[in-house]
Amino acid sequence: MNVKMIRYILGKMLGVEGVLLLLPAFVSLLLREAEGVYFLVPSVLLIGIYLISGMKAPENRTIYGKEGMVIVAGAWILWSLFGALPFALSGSIPNYLDALFETISGFTTTGSSILKDVEALPKSMLFWRSFTHWVGGMGVLVFVMVLTKLDKKNTMYLMKAEVPGPEKDKLVPKAMDTARILYGMYLGMTLIEVVLLLLGGMNVLDSFIHAFGTAGTGGFSNYGASVGHFNSAYIDGVITVFMILFGVNFNLYFFLLMREFKPIWKNEELRAYLGIIAAATLIITWNISFHYANPLQAFRYAVFQVGSIITTTGYATADYTIWPMLSQCILMMLMIIGACASSTGGGIKVSRFLMLLKCIKREVKQMAHPKSVSIIRVNGRKVEADVLKNLSIYFMAYAGIVGLSILIVSLDNRDFGTTFSSVLTTINNIGPGIGLVGPSGNFADFSPLSKIVFCLDMLAGRLEIFPFLMLFTMTAWNRKF
Amino acid sequence: MNVKMIRYILGKMLGVEGVLLLLPAFVSLLLREAEGVYFLVPSVLLIGIYLISGMKAPENRTIYGKEGMVIVAGAWILWSLFGALPFALSGSIPNYLDALFETISGFTTTGSSILKDVEALPKSMLFWRSFTHWVGGMGVLVFVMVLTKLDKKNTMYLMKAEVPGPEKDKLVPKAMDTARILYGMYLGMTLIEVVLLLLGGMNVLDSFIHAFGTAGTGGFSNYGASVGHFNSAYIDGVITVFMILFGVNFNLYFFLLMREFKPIWKNEELRAYLGIIAAATLIITWNISFHYANPLQAFRYAVFQVGSIITTTGYATADYTIWPMLSQCILMMLMIIGACASSTGGGIKVSRFLMLLKCIKREVKQMAHPKSVSIIRVNGRKVEADVLKNLSIYFMAYAGIVGLSILIVSLDNRDFGTTFSSVLTTINNIGPGIGLVGPSGNFADFSPLSKIVFCLDMLAGRLEIFPFLMLFTMTAWNRKF
Repeated sequence: MNVKMIRYILGKMLGVEGVLLLLPAFVSLLLREAEGVYFLVPSVLLIGIYLISGMKAPENRTIYGKEGMVIVAGAWILWSLFGALPFALSGSIPNYLDALFETISGFTTTGSSILKDVEALPKSMLFWRSFTHWVGGMGVLVFVMVLTKLDKKNTMYLMKAEVPGPEKDKLVPKAMDTARILYGMYLGMTLIEVVLLLLGGMNVLDSFIHAFGTAGTGGFSNYGASVGHFNSAYIDGVITVFMILFGVNFNLYFFLLMREFKPIWKNEELRAYLGIIAAATLIITWNISFHYANPLQAFRYAVFQVGSIITTTGYATADYTIWPMLSQCILMMLMIIGACASSTGGGIKVSRFLMLLKCIKREVKQMAHPKSVSIIRVNGRKVEADVLKNLSIYFMAYAGIVGLSILIVSLDNRDFGTTFSSVLTTINNIGPGIGLVGPSGNFADFSPLSKIVFCLDMLAGRLEIFPFLMLFTMTAWNRKF
Repeated sequence: MNVKMIRYILGKMLGVEGVLLLLPAFVSLLLREAEGVYFLVPSVLLIGIYLISGMKAPENRTIYGKEGMVIVAGAWILWSLFGALPFALSGSIPNYLDALFETISGFTTTGSSILKDVEALPKSMLFWRSFTHWVGGMGVLVFVMVLTKLDKKNTMYLMKAEVPGPEKDKLVPKAMDTARILYGMYLGMTLIEVVLLLLGGMNVLDSFIHAFGTAGTGGFSNYGASVGHFNSAYIDGVITVFMILFGVNFNLYFFLLMREFKPIWKNEELRAYLGIIAAATLIITWNISFHYANPLQAFRYAVFQVGSIITTTGYATADYTIWPMLSQCILMMLMIIGACASSTGGGIKVSRFLMLLKCIKREVKQMAHPKSVSIIRVNGRKVEADVLKNLSIYFMAYAGIVGLSILIVSLDNRDFGTTFSSVLTTINNIGPGIGLVGPSGNFADFSPLSKIVFCLDMLAGRLEIFPFLMLFTMTAWNRKF
């Protein structure tokens, strides 16, 4: 274990957070809020840490998979620990555990909140809260990678642990350039959304906050009623479209930039993703139509909620906990499925489900024709046995963590819907659940133990479980390395 | 596809059911109930079918995996369709779908009921209802195999589809002798339980009914309050012990007969199974202690419910839906885990979970030491990659069926606990769930569509999903074979 290199890279990354904290400080200056100082103090602290341990690279710069995982998991945890300081220091969220929950929820783009009255927070705090979504969205680490200069091999190990979804090969070879282009597109799309929201009559702060929440598929709003506050079909529409766009595999936007439309059209995951959205929207529209004045109204609320849940954004325009059980169950399934691989969304990812469906299909086929040999292809590429095995083990680890979390959270003695959905919504980085954690509820009243479980689940979900599991198995720290 | 051979074997098996129906007819004679005729009519019908298609073997007796699966799935379905006739013809359960639900619940040893007032049924009907548990418990097909004479190869294909759990190799070589010994032990253990229950003051009918329910890990009782009706610590104790015994891998009883204690002591699945029971009982005893007069009382109810749920029996001595959420969640997890492989219990099986846990452990270890090679062993034997792959696909198919079933059942618009647990309890062949299908509830008020889903889930669970999936994929019937 190359501890020096870990310390060096983590030092660099904390420096980046120190710089990022200057933005909300600047916002508070613009808004003439006194809270600016609570951003400056942690900022100075972080830059100090950078100066001590992030300036000079150690001689041995070699890192492997295990270091990569420790760095990634460590970075998310440290960023959250420091990112919570403005909330706690300013007294906006007096309890540090609550502040930490809110920050982890931000960076992991979950969007769950412990705030009972979000509108009471100073505007600069709300800005920082939503900005964490935007930063978290594309991965803290790729961001840092663009700024620092690691050699290619190291970058690959970090990317492996960081970039969501099972597909990595396209991104890896030219990781640095790729990351720059990705960030360009990410920034561009965010700004387009800001402009479209401004055109819909939103003020500047609201536009940025909701664009950050959409881009990161996070879902923090500065209003208690979430996007429902604006009660505008136009704004609902813009946010729906952008939520769905940010749930698409970002590699496809590359092809779009290069004017190659065939791989986009032929992308199985995209088709499945849009197909699931269409099917879920249709069924829910039909299922909830009697709740609304006309089918168009029902469609507006159905498609927003479907887009919000499958991309794991978590914005709400309707209280779906009063919808019929079928609609609620469909939303619960969408929570688990999640968005496309290599998007900012969370969840298990559509491509993983596609692969599994194909495995099951093949298995049943082989029972009927024992001599047949079928090869599983996703997006025209052969899926190797190893990938399938890892996939299955990933699912099992996921199920195990969900089970264990439910047991601990059940100590709080809430109803079934609340207990199950609070765990699912945090580990899948969605935000709201059903029952007490529904779109109009919050996580404030859980016990500290449950809040800690939710924090760990949000991190495990964002890091796609394995780096996180490894950090907690002591083998990684074993002296033998 | 050797259709003639399928018809021949199914004909034989229906003949066996015809003979079995003579037993409740005899019981109704003893009890001087008029219902005997409703057993005799289907019995004559089934024996007629046997005389037409089950008497003479076709020339080509070769069958393969796909025929094996079709026979097994077909047998369970046909047995259920005919087994429901006494209930429907006598008017004890006037609606045929309800009668079918009850019969499938019996043969699959689920124990879920649509009866609102079980005590109103004629005694001979209650006897037949519980006798289906006993017959279903060890698998209709192995039973038939002992009576008919298939050659070894065919037997193996049938066993593969029939015997629960991932372990088959020990049973296969001398399938006929093995089955005879198994049935001897099964009958012997049942009779010992009958005697012990008689000693506790139960009458003869009650003793047989509850011994049948325990042996098959089914859970039908002839009292609305289930085993709670007797309110006897002695009876609770006897049934608890026997439920746990019938959840043990039956191969271990072979070793016991042969006085080989080492493989029993070293059996990892047994240790895990007993460990889980002990841990769950301890936690629940602590968690519910304030509900009961003293910790011993709490222990009595905790261990009974734990034994009942993990072995998927489903007897109840307490309404656990009023217990704290932690206890309910633990029971929900036990529902999914299930008993040991090659036992009469349902669920996913402890050995499958053991293998998965080991896979995850290895995966995490390999991320830290990429060069290490670890071999997964369960009970000292190497688990091959193929087994692991199949296992994972099994889990996924399971999750898929659960998901789809929940969506359909959610159309009935019940609460979350009811919707989720009704599906879990049927596919795992347990019996009661939580909410409206809790130990004091029943399945009567679900829509016909949901009842059909539950019937299919019970069959899928009992057949361990794949034979069942195959029957529903038309490739098996494709002309090409």
